[in-house]
Amino acid sequence: MQPTQRRLANAIRALAMDAVETANSGHPGLPMGMADAATALFTRHLKFDPAEPKWPDRDRFVLSAGHGSMLIYALLYLCGYERPTMDDIRRFRQLGSPCAGHPENFELEGVESTTGPLGQGLAMAVGMAIAERHLNAVYGDELVDHRTYVIAGDGCLMEGINHEAVGLAGNLKLGRLIVLWDDNKITIDGSTELSRNEDVMARHDACGWHTLECDGLDAGKVGAAIEKAKADPRPSLIRCKTIIGYGAPNKQGTAATHGAALGKAEVEAARAELGLAPEEFTVPDDVLSAWRQVGGRGAADRAAWEKRLRASRKGDEFRGRMAGKTEQRWLQPYLEALIASPPTVATRKASEMALEVINTAVPATIGGSADLTGSNNTKTKALQPLTAEDYSGRYLYYGIREFGMAAAMNGMALHGGVIPYGGTFLVFSDYCRPAIRLSALQRARVVYVMTHDSIGLGEDGPTHQPVEHIMSLRLMPGVEVFRPADAVETAECWALALDSEGPSVLALSRQNLKPVRTEAAAENLSARGGYTLRRAEGERRVIIIATGSEVEIALEVAERLATEGVGADVVSLPCWERFEAQDEAYRESVLPSAEPEQILRVSIEAGTTFGWERLVMAKGLRFGLDGFGASAPAPDLYRHFGLTADAITPKIMETVRQ
Amino acid sequence: MQPTQRRLANAIRALAMDAVETANSGHPGLPMGMADAATALFTRHLKFDPAEPKWPDRDRFVLSAGHGSMLIYALLYLCGYERPTMDDIRRFRQLGSPCAGHPENFELEGVESTTGPLGQGLAMAVGMAIAERHLNAVYGDELVDHRTYVIAGDGCLMEGINHEAVGLAGNLKLGRLIVLWDDNKITIDGSTELSRNEDVMARHDACGWHTLECDGLDAGKVGAAIEKAKADPRPSLIRCKTIIGYGAPNKQGTAATHGAALGKAEVEAARAELGLAPEEFTVPDDVLSAWRQVGGRGAADRAAWEKRLRASRKGDEFRGRMAGKTEQRWLQPYLEALIASPPTVATRKASEMALEVINTAVPATIGGSADLTGSNNTKTKALQPLTAEDYSGRYLYYGIREFGMAAAMNGMALHGGVIPYGGTFLVFSDYCRPAIRLSALQRARVVYVMTHDSIGLGEDGPTHQPVEHIMSLRLMPGVEVFRPADAVETAECWALALDSEGPSVLALSRQNLKPVRTEAAAENLSARGGYTLRRAEGERRVIIIATGSEVEIALEVAERLATEGVGADVVSLPCWERFEAQDEAYRESVLPSAEPEQILRVSIEAGTTFGWERLVMAKGLRFGLDGFGASAPAPDLYRHFGLTADAITPKIMETVRQ
Repeated sequence: MQPTQRRLANAIRALAMDAVETANSGHPGLPMGMADAATALFTRHLKFDPAEPKWPDRDRFVLSAGHGSMLIYALLYLCGYERPTMDDIRRFRQLGSPCAGHPENFELEGVESTTGPLGQGLAMAVGMAIAERHLNAVYGDELVDHRTYVIAGDGCLMEGINHEAVGLAGNLKLGRLIVLWDDNKITIDGSTELSRNEDVMARHDACGWHTLECDGLDAGKVGAAIEKAKADPRPSLIRCKTIIGYGAPNKQGTAATHGAALGKAEVEAARAELGLAPEEFTVPDDVLSAWRQVGGRGAADRAAWEKRLRASRKGDEFRGRMAGKTEQRWLQPYLEALIASPPTVATRKASEMALEVINTAVPATIGGSADLTGSNNTKTKALQPLTAEDYSGRYLYYGIREFGMAAAMNGMALHGGVIPYGGTFLVFSDYCRPAIRLSALQRARVVYVMTHDSIGLGEDGPTHQPVEHIMSLRLMPGVEVFRPADAVETAECWALALDSEGPSVLALSRQNLKPVRTEAAAENLSARGGYTLRRAEGERRVIIIATGSEVEIALEVAERLATEGVGADVVSLPCWERFEAQDEAYRESVLPSAEPEQILRVSIEAGTTFGWERLVMAKGLRFGLDGFGASAPAPDLYRHFGLTADAITPKIMETVRQ
Repeated sequence: MQPTQRRLANAIRALAMDAVETANSGHPGLPMGMADAATALFTRHLKFDPAEPKWPDRDRFVLSAGHGSMLIYALLYLCGYERPTMDDIRRFRQLGSPCAGHPENFELEGVESTTGPLGQGLAMAVGMAIAERHLNAVYGDELVDHRTYVIAGDGCLMEGINHEAVGLAGNLKLGRLIVLWDDNKITIDGSTELSRNEDVMARHDACGWHTLECDGLDAGKVGAAIEKAKADPRPSLIRCKTIIGYGAPNKQGTAATHGAALGKAEVEAARAELGLAPEEFTVPDDVLSAWRQVGGRGAADRAAWEKRLRASRKGDEFRGRMAGKTEQRWLQPYLEALIASPPTVATRKASEMALEVINTAVPATIGGSADLTGSNNTKTKALQPLTAEDYSGRYLYYGIREFGMAAAMNGMALHGGVIPYGGTFLVFSDYCRPAIRLSALQRARVVYVMTHDSIGLGEDGPTHQPVEHIMSLRLMPGVEVFRPADAVETAECWALALDSEGPSVLALSRQNLKPVRTEAAAENLSARGGYTLRRAEGERRVIIIATGSEVEIALEVAERLATEGVGADVVSLPCWERFEAQDEAYRESVLPSAEPEQILRVSIEAGTTFGWERLVMAKGLRFGLDGFGASAPAPDLYRHFGLTADAITPKIMETVRQ
C-alpha cells in the first residue's frame, strides 16, 4: 500500500524539525506548515527529473519564502537528487554544507534561485515565466512547455516588489505562473493583522490574476487547486490556508515556530503527534521509496523531450541558447566603423548604436526599460514588444517598476536561453540594488543599462543625480561596473557584459562626449579594465585616471599640462574590477608603484572621491563631488563643482611645483 | 466678478509652459493636466498660510509626482509665498534658483518634501498622516487637526513602495490622507496599457481605502470629491480623469508633453486655446488678485490656532516638540551605570537598553520595525502600539515593508513633532536605500536601527550578511553611519543620532560583544567619530583601527603584539564621517601622518576593505572580506574569513618585521 500524502509530507516535517534542532538555528514554521502543499505540488504536478536537474524543459520551482529552506532541502533529498545527502542535511547551516541558511542556486542544482530577501523569489519567478513564454514562442511547444511554481509567504506578499511583480505578470497574462500562498496569518511580529488589513485575493483579482483557495493542509485539495490553476489562462494565486509549524502541538500557529528551533520537548511532542519514528533524520522505508518513485516520475517525459530535441531542426540552436553562448563576431567590424568615423555622442546613444548590432547578432537578448525607453536608449529599431499577445517580441515595457524589472531579469537569466538587459537612470540603481546584489550572488548574466550617470544629466537636480552610486556599486562583490568614455569603449564594454558569467552595470552619460579612442587597437582594451589612453610626452610627472565622461576632461588637462612642460599620462578606467584583476605586471605598466613620490596621481570622476585613495594614494589629488548635486544645465554644474580643465589644471600645477 | 476656477488654473498652465520653455527642460504635462484639480484643492480645501509657511497645524501637500514641480512653484507664487518670486520661476532649473528641477524642501518653505524619486512622496505623506494622528492623540484637536494631500501620477502608483504605503495607510485607517491620482493614461513610454492592466481603484479598495472618481479637469467636481473624501473615515484615493498637457492643442494627451518643452509654436497655440495673454510669465491682475485672496484664506484660522496654542496648558511643550528639541540629560547617568557594571551584550541589545532610557526621557520618539521587532530590539517595555484604534501609541508594526517604513519615517520627521526610529537587518538597508538618500537630502532626522550588521549574524548566510553595506552607506552624502563597539558607545551614538539634524544609521551586532569602554570619559567620545581606545605601551609601531564588533578583536591583537614587544594603539571608529569632520589637530593626535613609514596602520572591519586605504594608506593592512559571506555559526565564519586575533596577529608581525 502506498503511504498517504500526509505521511509523505510528514517526512518533510521531520527533516525540517530535526535539521533546525540540530543546528539550533533556522525556520521550522514554513516547511511544517507547507509540507502538504509542497507534497501535492511535487508528487502530482511538478515536472522535473533529479537525474538531470538542468533539463531545460523542467518546471521551475521557487521557494520565495527562502527562510523555509529546509522544505526544499527535504524535497530534493526525498526525490533522489544527488545532493543534498542526508549528511548534508544533518549539517544544515554549517560551514561547507550545501544546505545553507537560505537556498542558494550555486550550492544545489535543484535550487533554481537564491532566495531569502523577501519578495524577490516571486519577482524572479515572473522573469522565469516570461523567459518560458518567449522561448515557447520561438521554439514551440515541443521544446519549451513548462510552468513556474512559487511558494510565497506573507512577507513576500507585503514587500513592495510584490506589487511590481504581480502587476507585470498580470499585464503579460503569464498563465504558466502559479503561486502558492502560505496563508498562515502569522509574521515574525505576531498576527498579520498587526500590519495588514488587505484583502490579498481582491488585490490580485484587480491585477488580472486568477485566485482560488483551499485547505493548505490537505494535499488532495491543494492538488485539485493546482489542477484548476493550470487550466486557467491567467497567473494564479492559490491561497493555501495553513497553520505555521503544523504538527508541533504546543507551538503551532504561533510566531514562535517561525525562526527558531522548537526545542527538544516540542520536537518529541511533534514526533508523537505526527506518528514519526523516534530517531532523528530518519525516513521510513516505504515513505522514502514512495518519494523516490515521485523523483522518477519525470524520466519518461524527459526522454521524450530529448528525442524531440534530437529530431528538431532547431535542436542545435536551442542547445546553444540554453548553454548561454554568445556571438562576439559583431564587435570587430563595428569597432572598425567607429574608428573610421568617430561619433560625438552620449554613451547612452553609443549603447543604442552597439545594441543595433548586438540585437541582430545575438538573438538571445531581451531588452527593456522601466518606463524610460527613450532616455535609456534601450530599444533598437527591429525589436518588437514582448506582450501578452505576442511573446516572441524581444522588448519589455516593464513600467515604472525598477526593482521588479531587475528581479525579473534575474529570473530570466536564471531560466536560461535569454540574456536580459534593462534600463533606468543610474540614481535609481538604488531601487534595484537588492536585486543587483542577488544577480551577483547568483551569477546571473544581467546587463543593467544605467543612464544619466552623473551631474552631467543637468537640470533634473540632486534627486536624479548619482554621486555615490558608481562607487557603491563597485563595492558590491561580483558586479562589474563599466563606465565607458566614448562609443568605442561602450561597444567594448557591451561585448564584455554579454560575455560575462555575472551581472554588469553600464553607467552611461546623458550628455554628448567627444571620441577619445580614435585609433584601432589590437585587443579589447576595456577588457583590461584600465589602460593608458594617452602617454606623456617627455618626462612623466603626472598620471590622470578618469572614467566615462571625465576622460575627455582628463585629456584636456593633460594637453594643458604639456604646454606647461609637465608630462601626463591619461588612464581610462572603464572597469575598476577588471583592472584590479589584471596581473601585477600589467597594472604596474599602467600605474607604476615604484615612483609614487615622483609621479603625482590624479583621479577625475563626477562622483564621490571616497575610495579613489586606492589608486591615487594618500598624496594624490581626487577630483569629484562628495555632496549632492544641483539643478542646472550640465556645463554650469561641471563649472560649479570644479570639474573642468580650467579648474583642475592649476591645482595639479600647484602640487607638481611644490 | 471673480475669475472662474478655470482661469485660475490656466495661470498655473501658463507659468508651467513658460518656465519649461525658457529652461528648454522640464515637465509641462503634469502641471497642465492637474492645474484644475490643484486649483480646487488650494482654493477651497488646503489649510495653509503663506505668511507662516511652517504653521504646525497647516495641511501638508505633497507633490509625489515631483517632476511636475512647476505646479507647486506656480501655486506658491500665486498664493503669495515670499519665495519663489517670478524671477525665481523665470530661472527655473538654473543654478541658484530655488525652482529646481524637482521640488526641494530645503529650497522653498512651501515645499513639504523633496520628491522626484517616484512613489516616495506618497509614502512620505503616509508618515506625515501618522505623525498628525499621533500628535492629535497627544495634544488634541485644538492644536493638531490637519490633513495630508498628495498628487500622485501613474508612476507613483506603479512603484512597489506604493503597495507598502497603501497597505500601511489602510491598516492604520489614516482618514486624513487624501490622494489625488492624475489618471491621464500616459507614461513616458506611451499608454499605461503598455505595462499595466490593473484596476487601480479595486486594488485600493482591497486595502481598505475609500475610492472615488471625478473629471479632473473640472475644479468644481474635484472640489466636491475632496469634500466627500474629507467626510470618509478611510484614506481616500480620488481618481482625477485628466489629459496630460491639457491646453496644448496638438500635443495634449500624448507622452510628448510629459518631460520636454512644448516648443514655441505649441506654446503659442496653447496660449490661444487657453485664452492667455501673449506675454510670457504674466498673470492677469484679476487672476493674481484672486489667487492672493486664496493665499489669505488661512490667516484667520492660523490666528485662532495661535490663540489656542497660547491658551493651552501644553503650549510650551508642543512648541518644544515641533522645534525638535531633545532631552540629553538621560545620557550621563546611564553611562555611569554602564561603566559601573559593564555588560557583555550584543549592540542590538545595548540599543534596546539605551532606548529604555531614551523613550522615557524623550517622548517624541516613535519606534518601529519592519517585522523584526524581537531581532532589532526596537520595542521597549513601556511603548504601546500605534494603531488605528489608538494613535497615541509610540510603536509601529510596519509589517514587511522596509522601504515603506523608511519613507514613512521621512514623512514623520518632516512633519515634525516626532523622532522616528525603525529597524530592519542591515543587509536590507538596500531595500530602504532610496529613502535613506532622501533622508539625507532633506535633512530628515530619522534613526535607522540596522541590526545583524556583518557575518557575525551567522547561519542565515550570504543573503542576509552585509558586506558592502556599511561602506556604501558611508559613501552617501549627509548620512552618519554609527557602528558602536559596546554598550557605552551604543548609548553615545544614540545620543548623537537624536541630536542630529539629519539621518543616522546605527549598525548593530547580532552577537554578544565584550565591553571595551570600561572607564568613565569626560566627554562623548563617539562624538569625535574616532578616538584612541588603547594606547601602545612603549614605542608605538602599529595603529589598529576597528569598528563595532571588531574592536574587541583589535584589542586582543594589540595585547598579543605587546607580548611580542610591538606597541600598538587601538582606535575605535564608531563614525567615520564625524572623525573626518574633526579638526586636523585632533585627527593627527589619533592618526599621526608624520610617520607613515614608521607606524603601520591596520584596519579590521567585517566588511569590504575597499575604502580603508583612506585611513590606513596604501601600505597599511586591511582585514575584512570583499566577497560574500557564508552560512555557518558566527565563530566559524570569523575563523573562515581570517578575522581573528590568531589570523591577524602573525600577519601584522610579518609586516612589522620586514
